[in-house]
Amino acid sequence: MGQYKAPIRDIQFVREELLDVNSFYHSCDQWNEVGSDLSNAILDECAKFSENVLAPLNAIGDEQGCTLAEGVVTTPEGFKEAYQQFVEGGWPSLDGPVEFGGQALPKSLALTVTELIGSANWSWSMYPGLSRGACNTLFKHGSEEQKATYLNKLTEGTWTGTMCLTEPHCGSDLGMLRTKAEPNADGSYTLTGTKIFISSGDHDMAENIIHIVLARLPDAPEGTKGISLFIVPKFNVNADGSVGERNAVSCGALEEKMGIHGNSTCVMNFDGATGYLIGPENKGLNCMFTFMNMARIGTAIQGLCHAEYAYQNSVAYAEERLQMRSLSGPKAPDKPADPIIVHPDVRRMLLTQKAFAEGGRMLLYYIGLLDDRMTMSTDEEEKQYYDDMQAVLTPIAKAFMTETGFEAANLGMQIFGGHGYIREWGMEQNVRDSRISMLYEGTTGIQSLDLLGRKILMSGGQSLKIILDLFNEFVHSHQDTAELQEFIEPLAQLLTEWPKLTEQIGAAAMNNPDEVNAACVDYLMYSGYVCYAYMFARSALVAQQALKEGTDEKEFYEGKIYLARFFYQRLLPRTVTYAQTMVSGVDNVLNEEVNPF
Amino acid sequence: MGQYKAPIRDIQFVREELLDVNSFYHSCDQWNEVGSDLSNAILDECAKFSENVLAPLNAIGDEQGCTLAEGVVTTPEGFKEAYQQFVEGGWPSLDGPVEFGGQALPKSLALTVTELIGSANWSWSMYPGLSRGACNTLFKHGSEEQKATYLNKLTEGTWTGTMCLTEPHCGSDLGMLRTKAEPNADGSYTLTGTKIFISSGDHDMAENIIHIVLARLPDAPEGTKGISLFIVPKFNVNADGSVGERNAVSCGALEEKMGIHGNSTCVMNFDGATGYLIGPENKGLNCMFTFMNMARIGTAIQGLCHAEYAYQNSVAYAEERLQMRSLSGPKAPDKPADPIIVHPDVRRMLLTQKAFAEGGRMLLYYIGLLDDRMTMSTDEEEKQYYDDMQAVLTPIAKAFMTETGFEAANLGMQIFGGHGYIREWGMEQNVRDSRISMLYEGTTGIQSLDLLGRKILMSGGQSLKIILDLFNEFVHSHQDTAELQEFIEPLAQLLTEWPKLTEQIGAAAMNNPDEVNAACVDYLMYSGYVCYAYMFARSALVAQQALKEGTDEKEFYEGKIYLARFFYQRLLPRTVTYAQTMVSGVDNVLNEEVNPF
Repeated sequence: MGQYKAPIRDIQFVREELLDVNSFYHSCDQWNEVGSDLSNAILDECAKFSENVLAPLNAIGDEQGCTLAEGVVTTPEGFKEAYQQFVEGGWPSLDGPVEFGGQALPKSLALTVTELIGSANWSWSMYPGLSRGACNTLFKHGSEEQKATYLNKLTEGTWTGTMCLTEPHCGSDLGMLRTKAEPNADGSYTLTGTKIFISSGDHDMAENIIHIVLARLPDAPEGTKGISLFIVPKFNVNADGSVGERNAVSCGALEEKMGIHGNSTCVMNFDGATGYLIGPENKGLNCMFTFMNMARIGTAIQGLCHAEYAYQNSVAYAEERLQMRSLSGPKAPDKPADPIIVHPDVRRMLLTQKAFAEGGRMLLYYIGLLDDRMTMSTDEEEKQYYDDMQAVLTPIAKAFMTETGFEAANLGMQIFGGHGYIREWGMEQNVRDSRISMLYEGTTGIQSLDLLGRKILMSGGQSLKIILDLFNEFVHSHQDTAELQEFIEPLAQLLTEWPKLTEQIGAAAMNNPDEVNAACVDYLMYSGYVCYAYMFARSALVAQQALKEGTDEKEFYEGKIYLARFFYQRLLPRTVTYAQTMVSGVDNVLNEEVNPF
Repeated sequence: MGQYKAPIRDIQFVREELLDVNSFYHSCDQWNEVGSDLSNAILDECAKFSENVLAPLNAIGDEQGCTLAEGVVTTPEGFKEAYQQFVEGGWPSLDGPVEFGGQALPKSLALTVTELIGSANWSWSMYPGLSRGACNTLFKHGSEEQKATYLNKLTEGTWTGTMCLTEPHCGSDLGMLRTKAEPNADGSYTLTGTKIFISSGDHDMAENIIHIVLARLPDAPEGTKGISLFIVPKFNVNADGSVGERNAVSCGALEEKMGIHGNSTCVMNFDGATGYLIGPENKGLNCMFTFMNMARIGTAIQGLCHAEYAYQNSVAYAEERLQMRSLSGPKAPDKPADPIIVHPDVRRMLLTQKAFAEGGRMLLYYIGLLDDRMTMSTDEEEKQYYDDMQAVLTPIAKAFMTETGFEAANLGMQIFGGHGYIREWGMEQNVRDSRISMLYEGTTGIQSLDLLGRKILMSGGQSLKIILDLFNEFVHSHQDTAELQEFIEPLAQLLTEWPKLTEQIGAAAMNNPDEVNAACVDYLMYSGYVCYAYMFARSALVAQQALKEGTDEKEFYEGKIYLARFFYQRLLPRTVTYAQTMVSGVDNVLNEEVNPF
């Protein structure tokens, strides 16, 4: 069975040494007492819960899955009890608003909890994960009455939430959705339709489930401009806030999936269910973007979780498993063979996993901090900056972290050899569970179109410029730091090349907009490697400084510099291929005179 | 449910137009009547069987899996009946030796049958697949008596065979194996030990199972030099050839795997089983190489099968699924959205699948033909050439075709979006089934070490030279063919770069042998792309000639040129990254002064 140990030291490194979150917290009135002590206390407690309660349920969840019988969805053994503990521990409300019972701690701190529980048991973590999105949508777009009715329960976790978008014939293309909402005399609506792929759509872990549903009003315009957003509770809520009668929404079937079996992925039937409009009519998609952006970051985390899990288990196995002798002579002559960790190719795979886990953690926590900075800033221009930066980094994080997380998970199987293919070790589950991350909340292709088309080209390059400015500032500050040149030089080259490639695609797209679609995935992958390169250069700098100042964690900091070097020498060269292919033109995939299929 | 249609036209193209197999067959006395008519008749019949009998059992096999109850392994519904039909159709004996009931047709022709049945249902195809390996080992290394006892039944398929190598503590490193074989007075041996991961180890499809087992004699030297090879039948064979009493070999458990559920992967217990030595004492590993080489080609096919299956299903889905409008304006204005095949990024994925399927087919059939040429040649030098060429191409085919087959399978899920993650469409099964191919019969790492270390560097580069000579010959013959320059030029560059990279690694390895292990996987992947590049250039030439000569299959041949171009522009640039990383040195993965884990 797979094991999990919270990587507390690395989380501290990223938060406190790399991003210096504490200085920022201390600069905010609300958080001036948030520091290492509190963060560490939270991390330690969450580590115990994740390692001892959630991690052991990971394989059980996969094996048992969820079951639907007589309209009732039952989660795997222990899931409900773990959730009870989670609620009692106050975990769901960590960063919730005080007025609804939350603890109003920084979102960047709550992110560490999301990482830990997600790494220990991704399927389980999706139940509270989707709730957070529902909370946020209600908080931003709900009426005062709606907030009063739902937010306390959702924040404390007694109720959970979902996000009902997809229908059988429409996934990425929400403009085609058909679920109908007809107005009732009392101001409520009656919803009819079928939604599919609804994560945590029904379960036995909470006393009520609040569905956030996209539907169409009778007179709505066609396409995305005619979509409205509704609250549909599983049980109607009485005037006193207690749980009332069952609403006409139910789980019609559980999807049979490749993985994440511990999470109930439901077909949800709305058979004249009562719902309540959130936000203005026909503006549902705009409101839903709040949810979707959050869900994209929530899925980016998944990439990190599976990479971390794969790495931890792989390194433990590689240290134990004896197979073949090192080509440069026996390393464990007293044993019948050397542990496979001595073989350079195995180390290459382990370091790839580690680079994807740690690179992902740096990028993710950086984005998490942007969110807090935006919330706390009182300067409109500054707020806009943080918002823009988040907007452009979100699709990169979502797609790149999940693609590389899947690669790391796969390497986990590869390091275990044939044993990786067997259930026992948890590596094949990790691959199956991670595979969904490149699909839901917008596929890699959709994220890439968002990045290159909607964000970068439609802003005339402004969205790219804010990243380039940030990265260039770092490059310029350190162009005289001799020991950093192995990172600064290649990074500087990429920062020159990146805008040129963008311009080249932009120019081609003026003649043929399809050029954007033909280039976008390679472009996104390229962008991801550059972002990690920036992060790794920064981490090497921090480590060099720590070593210079003297430390009793020499091995740790030397490891940081070594990993950065590995990333630059072994993974960053992938940008060279992407740079070539992204500008190879649409003609080699779409030429009206040839049908190659 | 996934669908399968035998790609007969492409198989004909590769065999008859690209490789001109018929000219070779006609030059052999034994095969001078083997031509298009016979090949097409076999292909058509096999297509019917694969499409109508095996393909529908593919999802059933995955869902039901095999079961073990009271020592008896039962295969999924319909598997046994399909096997019966297969035997009755004479399929197992297609290329078997005449003296043992075979039809002695070319192995290169039998390969098409292997492709078709494997694409339709990989798990099922493994039952006869492993038998072929057992047959071949017995044919090459067995005594006359052994051949007389086993080969007729194995050739006709009434009995099947297995390959028992792996033990819990030794996979790649067979030197550590512990299964004991003690000599008996009657010349037989008593085998005791446990083998794991034994594909088709036990089942209900054949009346007897002949295990080929690696074990150690009492006084055997340690390591790989003390391994002998044995025949251990499930049922002892009576003097008259009939099936006798049960031998003390049994399935102790079925492995719980990620995929290939339709195949029984067994823990096999040898509890004092009677066995018979094949070949000389302590030379078992040498004899087993026959089997292993064949099994590696058999696994390379798997990469092709999953790529082909993924491609076929993906293109059908992409033509039907409506989602979003093309960026360059609606392509199906009468429909609510465009079919996703209009989106360049979807086409990029489809063409990648197609390139991996067709590139794999060309390389595989080329290797298959080498085998026939070697068998038929009477010139020792020529024989050696074919053998050497096969030896160097086999690890490339095994690792590269399975890695790219897995990539193609994964793209299958990606094209289906969220639906790809659901069982219903068969795409997630295809991913799970394909994943084993990079592990068994030697992982990608093991193949890479074999290629770069044992084959190329240990031969002083001779193994590489025979490939280079072949490819350069093609380049030189066509350096004046104007319309081929888009392929010839980049290919010529690679053929200059490849030996340089090899020399660079070889030189580094003189100082530190670990350099080979650090470079080998990138080196193998690079080699794979170059081999496909050669094949695609040749296919483009054939297509250009056909178009020049006039054809009523204009679309087909134009598609061939287009796909070659796609490969050169979108996939071949991956060599640029591999070229950089393979020579980046062992130091970035193994440095004795730093422990990065």
